[in-house]
Amino acid sequence: MTKERAYFEALALKEHGQLCPDHVPEVYHFDRTMSLIGMRYLEPPHIILRIGLIAGIEYPFLAEHMSEYMTKTLFCTSLLYRTTTEHKRAVAEFCGNVELCRLTEQVVFSDPYKVSKFNRWTSPYLDRDAEAVREDNTLKLEIAELKSKFCERTQALVHGDLHTSSVMVTLDSTQVIDPEFAFYGPMGFDIGAYVGNLILAFFAQDGQADEGNDRTAYKEWILRTIEETWTLFYKKFTALWHQHKDGSGEAYHPEIYNNPELQKLVQEKYMEDLFHDTLGFGAAKMIRRIVGVVHVEDFESIKDDSKRAACERRALEVAKMLLKERRNFQDITGVVSAIRKVS
Amino acid sequence: MTKERAYFEALALKEHGQLCPDHVPEVYHFDRTMSLIGMRYLEPPHIILRIGLIAGIEYPFLAEHMSEYMTKTLFCTSLLYRTTTEHKRAVAEFCGNVELCRLTEQVVFSDPYKVSKFNRWTSPYLDRDAEAVREDNTLKLEIAELKSKFCERTQALVHGDLHTSSVMVTLDSTQVIDPEFAFYGPMGFDIGAYVGNLILAFFAQDGQADEGNDRTAYKEWILRTIEETWTLFYKKFTALWHQHKDGSGEAYHPEIYNNPELQKLVQEKYMEDLFHDTLGFGAAKMIRRIVGVVHVEDFESIKDDSKRAACERRALEVAKMLLKERRNFQDITGVVSAIRKVS
Repeated sequence: MTKERAYFEALALKEHGQLCPDHVPEVYHFDRTMSLIGMRYLEPPHIILRIGLIAGIEYPFLAEHMSEYMTKTLFCTSLLYRTTTEHKRAVAEFCGNVELCRLTEQVVFSDPYKVSKFNRWTSPYLDRDAEAVREDNTLKLEIAELKSKFCERTQALVHGDLHTSSVMVTLDSTQVIDPEFAFYGPMGFDIGAYVGNLILAFFAQDGQADEGNDRTAYKEWILRTIEETWTLFYKKFTALWHQHKDGSGEAYHPEIYNNPELQKLVQEKYMEDLFHDTLGFGAAKMIRRIVGVVHVEDFESIKDDSKRAACERRALEVAKMLLKERRNFQDITGVVSAIRKVS
Repeated sequence: MTKERAYFEALALKEHGQLCPDHVPEVYHFDRTMSLIGMRYLEPPHIILRIGLIAGIEYPFLAEHMSEYMTKTLFCTSLLYRTTTEHKRAVAEFCGNVELCRLTEQVVFSDPYKVSKFNRWTSPYLDRDAEAVREDNTLKLEIAELKSKFCERTQALVHGDLHTSSVMVTLDSTQVIDPEFAFYGPMGFDIGAYVGNLILAFFAQDGQADEGNDRTAYKEWILRTIEETWTLFYKKFTALWHQHKDGSGEAYHPEIYNNPELQKLVQEKYMEDLFHDTLGFGAAKMIRRIVGVVHVEDFESIKDDSKRAACERRALEVAKMLLKERRNFQDITGVVSAIRKVS
């Protein structure tokens, strides 16, 4: 990877930090020649969220904080808030982060769907499952549609890698880090990455259960967190939209769209599309963590191969179903029910 | 408008000219300081296509040539042909043409749907029709979706203003000029602009009919040209795709997509989406020419207000129907039938 990525990481930290200072660490200094970022030290007891999820720790403000972060960073860098002039200038600048976009295209949208020396999975248990992914025409058709959105749709400044290791937490602090993959892409790529990784955490719990803790209650907490994250995001995002409905965002001019009935129609359609994008991208991110090059510690920490494979297979089944049938889901409750059914 | 637009016009002429030299005039010299383009003189008997359509002249190679132009310029500047690195570099450059994009956003996607001092129409005949456009929530929902694609989808380097006055013709030559609005946008915006303007030309014929020529045969020629343009475009575009299926285009890697059944599925889906985009953008371009700021000579040349209004109303009805129901059309034959039904 090029050292230029530090430039885009610093740029995104600053941009997102202005929009959501509570959940983005402050950048004090950036030196482009040295690719050096001086930023807030996230002091103990901050830990990586993924580690907390593996340890079975409940974070009471997580859904609140993450929905806040996603709402503010995505809404305010989109044409719901920005003028075309601001938007095109920012899009052009982040086009420079092409190496990192290419990496995502490869590891998320390509490698899992073909024979690649980079792919790995819990073998021999998942050999047939990995093969099934590579031979599934419907899955490939769907992943192509999402890839096209990833490459072509400049909807908002996305973090670009918003999994649970890009979030540091304490019981009452939530800080999003590492936006080196940031670019103008589809909002659903961020929300999906985050929700998809929560679903992975959910399916890994059976592998983390021991005599002292069967993780039943914790699994319910994760499902509740998934549900609350989307529900709160929906609420906050549409509220922010309402608040700025007379603003200078290019997408919906007040003179055209400010009648209550039409506003409702417009918002419902926007949020429905975003929900389906979220499920699609979330599924894509899950699949690549099971049969692609980079895996997640949630599963990797399960030492027994057969137990890990069983957890991964259930996650993979849910992901394939979500990718193919995402348009049939009306709300997050339906998704949570579907996850529960497989577990 | 800024003089910078000449830079993007020259850039697009050169880019499209390399891809399709037969239908794009050669640029000999560009001087950025002077905003001066030295380019091929399109000698007589070249005339503006719109003038030829008003005069009732049949152009036997028009569908062949325009489908060729759109195929080559759109396919070869998309991710079906280009790598991500090439694509993002070009997208970033054309983000600079923001003033012209803003103008399109205003006159195509905004003004016709609100009270605007720039709007005009054949009054009083179309007063109620113009009002109906401004009060139609379904129409506004659809136009919002298209506007979002226009602003956010960097699918290919589009001409950006491909109406029938941007084409110069003789009986055997077809030259596309004036790409000052060029940017990375949805392919359907170009194809739709062109087809939409042919539909306008069709509906204007009743106003151009006189005792010597009732234009019945010419109307049929226009419909045949519309049908052939899309049919040939479909054929050539998918053929070019097939020819480059092992190339370095980022969208569909050969290792994933090169099985005949999947290729068929992928192409059908891509072309269906493109067809629906084409109908939607075409309809949007028609509407704005009837109730927006800039009208077309096809209708303007009809001196009798009531006769002109009758022609415009039929065109407007078809446009509204296409915008709302475009997803129900399976092929161009169905569209042509629907047009014929209204005429």
